[in-house]
Amino acid sequence: MIDYYSLKWIDGKVRMIDQRLLPQDVVYLDYTDYREVAVAIRDMVIRGAPAIGAAAGYALALAAYQSKAASIDELRRELEEAALVIKAARPTAVNLFWAVDRVMAGVRSAPAKTTEELMEVVFFEADTIAQEDIEMCRCIGLNALSIVPDKARFIHHCNTGALATVGIGSALGIIRTAHEAGKDVFVYVDETRPRLQGARLTAWELKQLGIPHAVIADGASGYVMKYRGVDIVTVGCDRIAANGDVANKIGTYNLALVAKAHGVPFYSVGPTSTIDLNTPNGDGIEIEERDPTEVTRIGCEQIAPEGTPAVNPAFDVTPHELLTGIITEEGIAYPPFDQSLAELVAKAQKRRLAALKK
Amino acid sequence: MIDYYSLKWIDGKVRMIDQRLLPQDVVYLDYTDYREVAVAIRDMVIRGAPAIGAAAGYALALAAYQSKAASIDELRRELEEAALVIKAARPTAVNLFWAVDRVMAGVRSAPAKTTEELMEVVFFEADTIAQEDIEMCRCIGLNALSIVPDKARFIHHCNTGALATVGIGSALGIIRTAHEAGKDVFVYVDETRPRLQGARLTAWELKQLGIPHAVIADGASGYVMKYRGVDIVTVGCDRIAANGDVANKIGTYNLALVAKAHGVPFYSVGPTSTIDLNTPNGDGIEIEERDPTEVTRIGCEQIAPEGTPAVNPAFDVTPHELLTGIITEEGIAYPPFDQSLAELVAKAQKRRLAALKK
Repeated sequence: MIDYYSLKWIDGKVRMIDQRLLPQDVVYLDYTDYREVAVAIRDMVIRGAPAIGAAAGYALALAAYQSKAASIDELRRELEEAALVIKAARPTAVNLFWAVDRVMAGVRSAPAKTTEELMEVVFFEADTIAQEDIEMCRCIGLNALSIVPDKARFIHHCNTGALATVGIGSALGIIRTAHEAGKDVFVYVDETRPRLQGARLTAWELKQLGIPHAVIADGASGYVMKYRGVDIVTVGCDRIAANGDVANKIGTYNLALVAKAHGVPFYSVGPTSTIDLNTPNGDGIEIEERDPTEVTRIGCEQIAPEGTPAVNPAFDVTPHELLTGIITEEGIAYPPFDQSLAELVAKAQKRRLAALKK
Repeated sequence: MIDYYSLKWIDGKVRMIDQRLLPQDVVYLDYTDYREVAVAIRDMVIRGAPAIGAAAGYALALAAYQSKAASIDELRRELEEAALVIKAARPTAVNLFWAVDRVMAGVRSAPAKTTEELMEVVFFEADTIAQEDIEMCRCIGLNALSIVPDKARFIHHCNTGALATVGIGSALGIIRTAHEAGKDVFVYVDETRPRLQGARLTAWELKQLGIPHAVIADGASGYVMKYRGVDIVTVGCDRIAANGDVANKIGTYNLALVAKAHGVPFYSVGPTSTIDLNTPNGDGIEIEERDPTEVTRIGCEQIAPEGTPAVNPAFDVTPHELLTGIITEEGIAYPPFDQSLAELVAKAQKRRLAALKK
């Protein structure tokens, strides 16, 4: 039975799995204070853009539920303050800002007359973020079914599963959906240095799901394609430019080059919300470089000599020429991406408008 | 002052740096018993094909020096026994077998009449192996000078330095030679998962040598080529097929594909003794798969869930189409490699014959 999840709203509490302890220990933590959720986001109890977004939304719901505000104006002020605290938790997490802004837009514009009514608005907005993610993951998985062979040996990079989202995941959700649809699935799990999300989290998820897999060093993907055979590569995405260039976890670009050399289909997977039509191409995407000690230390182990410099980019950009397609909740975009991505974005907007009108 | 070395013969002892403790602790161990050297080879106190070969040779010299044999026949028997013990230390290390066989060929054919004379033969053969490696490394470094730009940003994979050889190293020896010749050198050090020889050993060597460097995750080489610029890639080699296909540490093939995509010159580096003209191409090279826990554990740290399967190839094969050249002590081979490699092997044979005649 599969019963793990990244986070859930349960009886006025936010329950989160502590991802820092995985895969060794499975511990769920209950939060009733939004400040503690902010600390949890900062300390990476929870990670993965969609999961962080949902946690931020629910944190605002907690702030509303905790409040002893006597008036609706006081509650609004408290929520504005909470929004700042939550945003400060991880200043580079785009989804965190997006989720907080979305809930706060509701708070600011809602025609609520009582604190109770405003509380309802906050919870509704937060819960909608979570529910939408669940639905998005489901659609992504189903949309990909047609392109996953009946016998499919995958390579997967980083972690894009239920731990990174509220639903079943994006790129890993595709694998799960194919497995549950009865396809014969095997996953080579890129360990994903430096933070090892593949070895730590994806391997753990696949074990829970009963999906056959083997971890590989990131540098072994060429060997695996050549000597063992790989049918499809699926990776997540952090940001998609208008021309289809994709920013994703470091190592994705190398993997795409290796897949290209072997003629292995390479799919980038994510919701249409990660498509940024205002960024014409990958050159406009700035890459954060992180603490060198993520490379030079591993857990308790000092690897390189103390003080060794390291270059530690968090992401790289895979040029669109290397992509077979981009799988979203609205369908699969194929080249030419500038056209197909714009169409998917328009489709998503139309659907949202239709939903609002209901 | 640079004063580290992998091993040295000093006053009837073999002194070796304990590479298991690097980079944290610099400890030299003295050996007087050949059995202890065999254990040291097995336990990877010493690693790197040329260094292991030299250690095996000197181990036989120790066996001869230790001996209390009353007759030359008894000494020969003792050395045959020692040869078996030393070969058993790492049954997959080709250089170990080569070095032991070379010394023992001398033992078997030498016209020695006394135990002292035979002892001399053993030491001479062993020391020649070491001295030849020093000279080979020196020539490789000098041969490469013409192709290293005056301002050269390298990517280097695994460890191919003084720790892996008796001399200054092969691929890393090129970097050292260029640096000492006054070129402006910077090295991006592939950490080289799973065993992290880059982060542990190459970074340590570069620090001792005062050569500017930064460690990167293996998956970041594409990022580094694209955003920072790389002028040349140098890697070692374990075996070169007649057509130029090269077996080397896992991750080399991916790096070669990434270099190709960026038009970065990619050189494989090694002595002509690693060229195997009897193997027509890379398909004939068998790849050892090693213990999965090398991937799923790092030092004291369990990374993946306990019992997670892993695929852990020790090597991969880089097809010759991806190589700019192969740098040896006899010169640089360029495509078509089947021709140029055969020429270099013939040149090396000629030189050896000439040396024998002296």
